[in-house]
Amino acid sequence: MKIAGTPTRSIRPLADRSGVEIIDQTHLPHALVFRTLRTLEAACEAIKTMQVRGAPLIGATAAYGLALAVSDDASDARIDAACAQLAATRPTAVNLRWALERMRARLLPLPAPARRDAAWAEAGAICDEDVAINEAIARHGLALIRDMHAAKGRAVNLMTHCNAGWLATVDWGTALAPVYAAHDAGVPVHVWVSETRPRNQGAALTAWELASHGVPHTVICDNAAGHLMRQGEVDLVLVGADRVAANGDVANKIGTYLKALAAHDNGIPFYVAVPGPTIDWRLADGSGIPIEARAAAEVTHIRGQAEGGRVLDVCLTPAASPAANPAFDVTPARLITGLITERGLCPASRAGLRALYPGHADG
Amino acid sequence: MKIAGTPTRSIRPLADRSGVEIIDQTHLPHALVFRTLRTLEAACEAIKTMQVRGAPLIGATAAYGLALAVSDDASDARIDAACAQLAATRPTAVNLRWALERMRARLLPLPAPARRDAAWAEAGAICDEDVAINEAIARHGLALIRDMHAAKGRAVNLMTHCNAGWLATVDWGTALAPVYAAHDAGVPVHVWVSETRPRNQGAALTAWELASHGVPHTVICDNAAGHLMRQGEVDLVLVGADRVAANGDVANKIGTYLKALAAHDNGIPFYVAVPGPTIDWRLADGSGIPIEARAAAEVTHIRGQAEGGRVLDVCLTPAASPAANPAFDVTPARLITGLITERGLCPASRAGLRALYPGHADG
Repeated sequence: MKIAGTPTRSIRPLADRSGVEIIDQTHLPHALVFRTLRTLEAACEAIKTMQVRGAPLIGATAAYGLALAVSDDASDARIDAACAQLAATRPTAVNLRWALERMRARLLPLPAPARRDAAWAEAGAICDEDVAINEAIARHGLALIRDMHAAKGRAVNLMTHCNAGWLATVDWGTALAPVYAAHDAGVPVHVWVSETRPRNQGAALTAWELASHGVPHTVICDNAAGHLMRQGEVDLVLVGADRVAANGDVANKIGTYLKALAAHDNGIPFYVAVPGPTIDWRLADGSGIPIEARAAAEVTHIRGQAEGGRVLDVCLTPAASPAANPAFDVTPARLITGLITERGLCPASRAGLRALYPGHADG
Repeated sequence: MKIAGTPTRSIRPLADRSGVEIIDQTHLPHALVFRTLRTLEAACEAIKTMQVRGAPLIGATAAYGLALAVSDDASDARIDAACAQLAATRPTAVNLRWALERMRARLLPLPAPARRDAAWAEAGAICDEDVAINEAIARHGLALIRDMHAAKGRAVNLMTHCNAGWLATVDWGTALAPVYAAHDAGVPVHVWVSETRPRNQGAALTAWELASHGVPHTVICDNAAGHLMRQGEVDLVLVGADRVAANGDVANKIGTYLKALAAHDNGIPFYVAVPGPTIDWRLADGSGIPIEARAAAEVTHIRGQAEGGRVLDVCLTPAASPAANPAFDVTPARLITGLITERGLCPASRAGLRALYPGHADG
């Protein structure tokens, strides 16, 4: 996507392979800050502290993190240790494990001196494939939005949750890819952006992306989603995923399940954009997906921009009150109208996924 | 309830009738600020800007607002104008209209010189009755929590939304009244407090109330409600109401409907604490309840305490992004396990409400 007219990916290797440049997303929407990760440790820290986030981008960052590690020391031991360190950064998004397994499978058979080049090439390939996957998701989702526009005869009101835009991937996004495609194709859309507490990736990232691209949108509190659906203000819900079980259960940002319930209660189509690497074929259903518990401070405090421009954290709760912060929830497949994958749409079911991905043995 | 050991109501007339003292709730949880309202205009402003909020407390404040107006000028014209001004402050909570109609019915038949005393007495009676109603709700709700404790053999995990505690009423609260009663009776409880964006009455007021009273609780983001229910972490949901239609549909703070959906999906009892004056017998169902649209700034900005103690508003969204802010939603009666009224429990249905309130002709 473009930032002020310049085509930009969310992660870019430096030409001399001394590091990878990311957008430090913790500064958005108030400032656009680029940061260069030069070590494995920096990559781990960037993932943990959510300078980068979004399942596909976590996978891509982990791949480059391993490439950075291998640049110093390409031994089996170093690869094992680096993979373990990267895998421990965040538990829920399966793309992290997927990317590391792919990197290992590519590197370990090679002699050590060949591993550095191969690591950078493989991380680059993961990124390029992510872009291609998202372009395909955009095409399949666009058809859905186009049909809805034809049926309604007016702008399509979409709702999304969290950020599944280009900032969550290498480029284009998953759930937002069809939205950009529709907008660019002249299909009128309007997006309800739920702010997505606690970290407000909706209000901070999705709104910023959509505003930058000129897509009409309105920010709402997460609480407003059900009311808008009851009022007929939502035609289609489109969200991303952090991990999809083999039966179509979807782990995604906390609050997704509530939106799915409301969509179901109001007969509104609820679609999940799912790149292949987000499917965890080893899990029979969503009950086995580990749900990350993040710091209570993400609930008790929030970052914003004060008058005058200073960005700071403010406390929202009494000092004596503890807080809990589960970062994801699981939406059962029964509430999902369909999955939008790079291979096309399918029902959120074992049979639906198997039909599109016949090569995979599932859990 | 007590603040630092001193019994305190949320609204108190000054002995000389020159004003009423309120807690300016916009400063909580960071500071406890009392404010004296001395004019009709001050009362209107306090309701509009949510220095006082909560359906029963809005009603009580409106009654005192009218008493303040009548203290200057007790003519019919003044009463009409003051009622119109007060009625326009907030549209959703029916207690406001109820209190004003009651005050008018009491005052208009009297000769003007008798109206001032009558107005202060009637406003006081409305407050005393609110306390009595909430004490009765506490008793009926306590039985429910006690039964659940007996069945579970451990602390009861309640979830609430927004603030339906003593700060939302004159004393005790509606949904929280049974919680205080249970805690005081030695029935172990733990409350999941959903922060309730945009104005965070959960994180700011409910958490403060519970912490002040020593009731175990944990603050969560609104998004986490469904996940906790799926995980078996919630035994009972208890919320308040701003207006209940004659068929049991409930308007309450935005987000209540999402919690009701999640409770229903997980087989968790979902009860609404309803004082009689919150029932709108003229409305056949919830579709006629006016839903207040509040300022977008409540979504785009949030108030919190910075390091060093200063309380300030910070911006959460890109400057280019509009926001929408519906303040209430309607939970259909089919999702509600029961209503807890001052006359006991009943199903959320026309028949259920009629059985408890036989004198009312409904819409």
